[in-house]
Amino acid sequence: MTTTVPTIKILQQATQPKWVEQAIANLDTVLLDHSHCERKAASFALNLMFRYPSYEKLVRQLTAIAQEELQHFEQVNQWLKKRNIPLAPLNSPPYGAALKALIRHNEPQRFLDFLLIASLIEARSHERLGLLAQHCPDPELAKFYKGLMASEARHYGIYWVLANEYFDPEIVEPRLTELSQSESEILATLHPEPRIHS
Amino acid sequence: MTTTVPTIKILQQATQPKWVEQAIANLDTVLLDHSHCERKAASFALNLMFRYPSYEKLVRQLTAIAQEELQHFEQVNQWLKKRNIPLAPLNSPPYGAALKALIRHNEPQRFLDFLLIASLIEARSHERLGLLAQHCPDPELAKFYKGLMASEARHYGIYWVLANEYFDPEIVEPRLTELSQSESEILATLHPEPRIHS
Repeated sequence: MTTTVPTIKILQQATQPKWVEQAIANLDTVLLDHSHCERKAASFALNLMFRYPSYEKLVRQLTAIAQEELQHFEQVNQWLKKRNIPLAPLNSPPYGAALKALIRHNEPQRFLDFLLIASLIEARSHERLGLLAQHCPDPELAKFYKGLMASEARHYGIYWVLANEYFDPEIVEPRLTELSQSESEILATLHPEPRIHS
Repeated sequence: MTTTVPTIKILQQATQPKWVEQAIANLDTVLLDHSHCERKAASFALNLMFRYPSYEKLVRQLTAIAQEELQHFEQVNQWLKKRNIPLAPLNSPPYGAALKALIRHNEPQRFLDFLLIASLIEARSHERLGLLAQHCPDPELAKFYKGLMASEARHYGIYWVLANEYFDPEIVEPRLTELSQSESEILATLHPEPRIHS
């Protein structure tokens, strides 16, 4: 299986075809995981506003992101209902925890890392929803994924712009390269449980 | 100063006039605290969905609540901007932590307590926004508070209905009476820092 989705600019390595095979063979589980991802993305944005409540531009833009993630959460849950997939908890793949472990503990590095990790997760989600849009056998669901892709792209852009708003681009770029390298390494081994970020 | 807002049904004691005096004398601080309250209310709803991801009705209704709280957060922040109040962190009054301490540790009691505490906080917010709507010297801001009141009333109703959906009303009522009693006791001593829940 080959993929024609180009590598997203800030990602070092494109997703391997074996992830696409795993995801398409387990679409229902991936859809349930996707629901959790949207809720987690909204929580991430809210937590960041809680940590940095004085940063006006950040608060304004993350409010919009959180609202949009909640809309997607709702939409994905409607898809679950349509396909008779009951809401249920699901183990997270190692991806999120592995990325979180890279966040430095001291400020302002911690703030920069939060923004860049968020940007990378959104970029990877954008890439993978694009792959699902391309390979999903259900044309309606494929269309839905295609619609969400654009939002994820906007979100990764917003987190990247915020990083460059609050930090010197000369500090942002090398750190993004480091984190992006790690992000690709984390995904180099396919997690056995099918997930958006397996 | 007297208040004509009636006691909200599930609250044991109406807010004392001294809170109204404190709030009206410190409207800017109360408005900033209100912004934090809206963000916290959205986070609370998201965290509850995270804890109980399989409860379809809960997830559906709390998604709507979280979305609405984020809209209010945005609107309150616009008011802050209008009044040139910069976004800033603010110490929480003891209210939230004192209520949280009442939540029992074992399930399913924990779940019931989460729903009832949320219902009480929303009911108290409804009552206090009503008092602000009534006493606020700025008619535009008073109108805004009046608009929000209705949502808070709906939210406390939703949490109460969810409690009665997942638990026998014969279990819900006595526990609500206990928690409501404690909630009024917590507020009997006015917190010296002006807050929505001081």
